Amino acid sequence: MKAAVMGYGTIGSGVVEVLDINGSSIAKRVGEPVEIKYVLDLRDFPGDPIQDKIVHDYKTIAEDPEVKIVVETMGGVEPAYTFVKAMLEVGKHVTTSNKALVAAKGAELIALAKEKNVNFMFEASVGGGIPIIRPLNSCLTADEIEEITGIVNGTTNYMMTEMSEKGADFDEVLKDAQAKGYAEKDPTADIEGYDACRKIAILTSLVCGQQVDFEDIHTEGITHISATDIKYAKAMGRAIKLLATSKKTDGGYVAMVAPFLLPKEHPLYNVNGVFNAIFVHGNVLGDAMFYGSGAGKLPTASAVVADVVEMAKNVDKNIPVEWSSKKLELVDYRSAENRFFVRVSGTDKASVEKVFGNVEYIDAQGVTGELGFVTEVMTEEALENKKAAYGEVLNVIRVA
Amino acid sequence: MKAAVMGYGTIGSGVVEVLDINGSSIAKRVGEPVEIKYVLDLRDFPGDPIQDKIVHDYKTIAEDPEVKIVVETMGGVEPAYTFVKAMLEVGKHVTTSNKALVAAKGAELIALAKEKNVNFMFEASVGGGIPIIRPLNSCLTADEIEEITGIVNGTTNYMMTEMSEKGADFDEVLKDAQAKGYAEKDPTADIEGYDACRKIAILTSLVCGQQVDFEDIHTEGITHISATDIKYAKAMGRAIKLLATSKKTDGGYVAMVAPFLLPKEHPLYNVNGVFNAIFVHGNVLGDAMFYGSGAGKLPTASAVVADVVEMAKNVDKNIPVEWSSKKLELVDYRSAENRFFVRVSGTDKASVEKVFGNVEYIDAQGVTGELGFVTEVMTEEALENKKAAYGEVLNVIRVA
Repeated sequence: MKAAVMGYGTIGSGVVEVLDINGSSIAKRVGEPVEIKYVLDLRDFPGDPIQDKIVHDYKTIAEDPEVKIVVETMGGVEPAYTFVKAMLEVGKHVTTSNKALVAAKGAELIALAKEKNVNFMFEASVGGGIPIIRPLNSCLTADEIEEITGIVNGTTNYMMTEMSEKGADFDEVLKDAQAKGYAEKDPTADIEGYDACRKIAILTSLVCGQQVDFEDIHTEGITHISATDIKYAKAMGRAIKLLATSKKTDGGYVAMVAPFLLPKEHPLYNVNGVFNAIFVHGNVLGDAMFYGSGAGKLPTASAVVADVVEMAKNVDKNIPVEWSSKKLELVDYRSAENRFFVRVSGTDKASVEKVFGNVEYIDAQGVTGELGFVTEVMTEEALENKKAAYGEVLNVIRVA
Repeated sequence: MKAAVMGYGTIGSGVVEVLDINGSSIAKRVGEPVEIKYVLDLRDFPGDPIQDKIVHDYKTIAEDPEVKIVVETMGGVEPAYTFVKAMLEVGKHVTTSNKALVAAKGAELIALAKEKNVNFMFEASVGGGIPIIRPLNSCLTADEIEEITGIVNGTTNYMMTEMSEKGADFDEVLKDAQAKGYAEKDPTADIEGYDACRKIAILTSLVCGQQVDFEDIHTEGITHISATDIKYAKAMGRAIKLLATSKKTDGGYVAMVAPFLLPKEHPLYNVNGVFNAIFVHGNVLGDAMFYGSGAGKLPTASAVVADVVEMAKNVDKNIPVEWSSKKLELVDYRSAENRFFVRVSGTDKASVEKVFGNVEYIDAQGVTGELGFVTEVMTEEALENKKAAYGEVLNVIRVA
């Protein structure tokens, strides 16, 4: 079974490494060895074991009928989209780790794969090595999924864990994460929640079977979380986590990316460091969770290669995926209901209660000159109105 | 798509209920409705919606060519084995929730299903509603699984959680669990670890691809765990959990069911109450965990019906499962290495150290007149020898 890898970066080279390390057991599962015939990259890699396999033109791969499976690990929508489409069109199976591509073009590429009787798989695009795409597609099929909520960004989860364990402030922890290689030089996509947003768009599309556009998902990052917020969280016995969440309500799906205060009892409460986890609530299954390494070279490559194995075992067959290009209109997030943790300057409880009504005050160790409190359940819109009516508010975090 | 249910007990009636509740979304996934044509049971169920579907002879189902899929939820090896074999032999797909049947006859029934070009599935036999069988078979396929360790018995996990939270003793918690319906009147299979043993036999067979006989697995239950042990666990910042575990060592697989002292950092540490979870370590994936409802009518039925959906989508195809009837010889558990927590009467440290060598003493609040300590890493056999050399030992628990 001949395969090709497009993009010899971290994940792409990890795929080559996994096929090398576990080649014999993979060959046993597939029924024959899986061999990398080409590696597409703009660069050459003199001295690398794959140096003779490097090609610079994707058409070399597209035009070789011996290649049945193509791995795309370039990242970004273009030129990945053009290349992947070309591979599917000539009847090659494709797996990708590229969340941007899947979020933007997933429905179209799934339909094209079906038309050509091949597969377009993307297990590694959400949750790194954690199996979640295939479980949603072939395990949780007896259920109506009423909620899917994930910690799907390792960078921000590492940062929130460090802030919580060390009491450090945002900027300090970001610098540490960058030094350790857990955060990029330009960390925007992670800390503003854009990465998590694309992932919850993919998961929601799979759950509802329609196209969910990531641009429609209300997205907040973690840049407004401070050491003081962490102190309040500890006083409440809660942890602050950046959640990407999607819930089925009577009116339809509400999706959001934002920090939440999670109680100790929540399965996601203990997901720390660079680990990821996806919580699922099914109407008959109840609560379930999938936990593991959400990023990293080998864990992510493990998920990509698992797709390769699945495609190799189904080389003459399209495995149906429910994700049509029909767009799903999400419910306006402002109608979503939550309790909210709010911090305001000063200690004038009468003013707080006049605007926010019944609240529960939180005493955080060493915090003075301000009030922190939890509201009753209200819509996002109601909270926005109250914020506007009150004047200056220091911070707001949703309480899960 | 016509199906039949054999055994109208808790799980069997749950399957009927799930197909009823989620019938329309299941029909969408399958491409046609899934309808229960027969329910096999010794009893009649006058007034029940399925009363007209009740049959008392399994041959009625076997001889009806319209029935493509059979659900077995009777429990026990016989007559389930005879019935399931008959169904596979006439070319019907079978799914079962019956761990005793799968542990004893899995390899044979998988081979028979393959020969007849149908499927024998058993997602619900381990971990109730948690997807673990299909993920092992079709998701973690790029890895060598080096460890699989589960909390796979809800009854004992509920009891250990209650003992930990309330400081209550074993007998008291058992009575409470029986009153709540979490433990059976005869709780032997749960509290002695026999149920967990069959489940880890199934998981190990899937991981290594060969037959692992549950009789070969060293199995200890939780009956020797006391409120005093819990006090020591708290002093160590650990939790006592009944683990079913299987590890790949240089010499082969070591499998065991026993209580372990888990550290806070372990993903299974926070699995509480009747929840189950299966921890997996792959050589490229790293750590992963699957968490959810390990028992209960609807969660377990959810897993059974997911098998029904998968079989309906692959009605003309056998999905290969690597589990040959060739027996795997496990490594003698006495060669397994651990640290051990040991309790002895009296306070004579010199005697302890003379036999057990370097130990770390644990001070547990309110415990007097005895010594509790953790040994260095040693084999099970070495520990047994030291126990014999010391004389009376109050309890031993493995430290994970």
